[in-house]
Amino acid sequence: MGSSMNEELKASSSTWECVSLSEIKDKLAEFAEVRGWTQYHSPRNLLLALVGEVGELSEIFQWRGEVAKGLPDWSSDDKEHLEEELSDVLLYLVRLADVCGLDLGQAALAKITKNAMKYPVSAS
Amino acid sequence: MGSSMNEELKASSSTWECVSLSEIKDKLAEFAEVRGWTQYHSPRNLLLALVGEVGELSEIFQWRGEVAKGLPDWSSDDKEHLEEELSDVLLYLVRLADVCGLDLGQAALAKITKNAMKYPVSAS
Amino acid sequence: MGSSMNEELKASSSTWECVSLSEIKDKLAEFAEVRGWTQYHSPRNLLLALVGEVGELSEIFQWRGEVAKGLPDWSSDDKEHLEEELSDVLLYLVRLADVCGLDLGQAALAKITKNAMKYPVSAS
Amino acid sequence: MGSSMNEELKASSSTWECVSLSEIKDKLAEFAEVRGWTQYHSPRNLLLALVGEVGELSEIFQWRGEVAKGLPDWSSDDKEHLEEELSDVLLYLVRLADVCGLDLGQAALAKITKNAMKYPVSAS
Repeated sequence: MGSSMNEELKASSSTWECVSLSEIKDKLAEFAEVRGWTQYHSPRNLLLALVGEVGELSEIFQWRGEVAKGLPDWSSDDKEHLEEELSDVLLYLVRLADVCGLDLGQAALAKITKNAMKYPVSAS
Repeated sequence: MGSSMNEELKASSSTWECVSLSEIKDKLAEFAEVRGWTQYHSPRNLLLALVGEVGELSEIFQWRGEVAKGLPDWSSDDKEHLEEELSDVLLYLVRLADVCGLDLGQAALAKITKNAMKYPVSAS
Repeated sequence: MGSSMNEELKASSSTWECVSLSEIKDKLAEFAEVRGWTQYHSPRNLLLALVGEVGELSEIFQWRGEVAKGLPDWSSDDKEHLEEELSDVLLYLVRLADVCGLDLGQAALAKITKNAMKYPVSAS
Repeated sequence: MGSSMNEELKASSSTWECVSLSEIKDKLAEFAEVRGWTQYHSPRNLLLALVGEVGELSEIFQWRGEVAKGLPDWSSDDKEHLEEELSDVLLYLVRLADVCGLDLGQAALAKITKNAMKYPVSAS
């Protein structure tokens, strides 16, 4: 794909700060360590905590019917609440990968590449 | 916290490649765009797809009883499968944040800071 | 509420066979026992299996946008698939309650009564 | 299977009140109708509400490590809380099936029969 189309696509999407998964992982490992919480961070405990956060994320969307992209009708409070619940899911997901000894960022890039081969552009 | 303890903590955790959430978001936006899938990526469609992937993640852990950190008894196939399911959850989460117009990386760092204030180290 | 309105309401809803939760619970206990599966049916194993089934249920709805009541546009195959996934969630939920030593039917009736007091009709 | 073994199995499991899914469905339909909530009970709204309740159910189990059958170490408050969350999942599941026009009790019995054929006793 040419760089000009690439630029357009990037422009059509929102711009995000550059935050690495590795940085988040390190912060979470330190967070748990200094609070003595590492002992509670077994894989299945973290997985159930993740499911709990996915539940809270779903509750935000549950009575709204279809929701438009960009959330045009949402209050800033509702958007902030959503940011927090999306974050909670991410934090437990990163922590779960870390205690399992798996590199989530590397795995995610590999999965995108695998998906690209599974769904070639011309066949879509 | 002193840098020496910081180093120890980082050392005790696995080392991850530096992959940014912003990079993943851009790849996914392009992936959907070139396949004509953007029309299906409404917030609630993506949320239900995320729940589906959390279900597949849970299936990996469901009959195992307690699982030790680092997954010492798991085959490399099982670990690879887990990497893929963790990735699928991440990909839908990033995509959901993007179509909602929210910066997930920035939000995650803000949530860690908020959690640090909510749970001060001395009180743990 | 008068019985005539009651009748109308019941009439507007579909009619179900009379199947008790207790009957399902007994069948599942026997099913696990005769297959030697009781040992795997710990509360958290069953909970994660339930989450897995909720994921499969969500997958049925994930790319459809809003879905009309009664599923007018669904094929009979899709409806049958949905019946199976709804059932799988129910079966693990009943089994989970049973291994926890809790009476789900009694608890459900108590919760409806509690909800009725929490949300009085006049205030709705 | 002989009736004597059947009796033993039933005896080893807890005894539940006889509560039918049909009865719960009727109560929920009436509950929504008299409060004017029927308009909000679309299939995907109810599904997301169900996911929210599964999240609350998971939160009860998330930091406990493995949990023994019968919950011997749980307080009566914790057990009551669990009964309420199990019930909430059931209520949304029954309501979801109803608005989809599907008979959950009948479907559950059919699924048990199908599972029995899929996993014959001798092969387990």
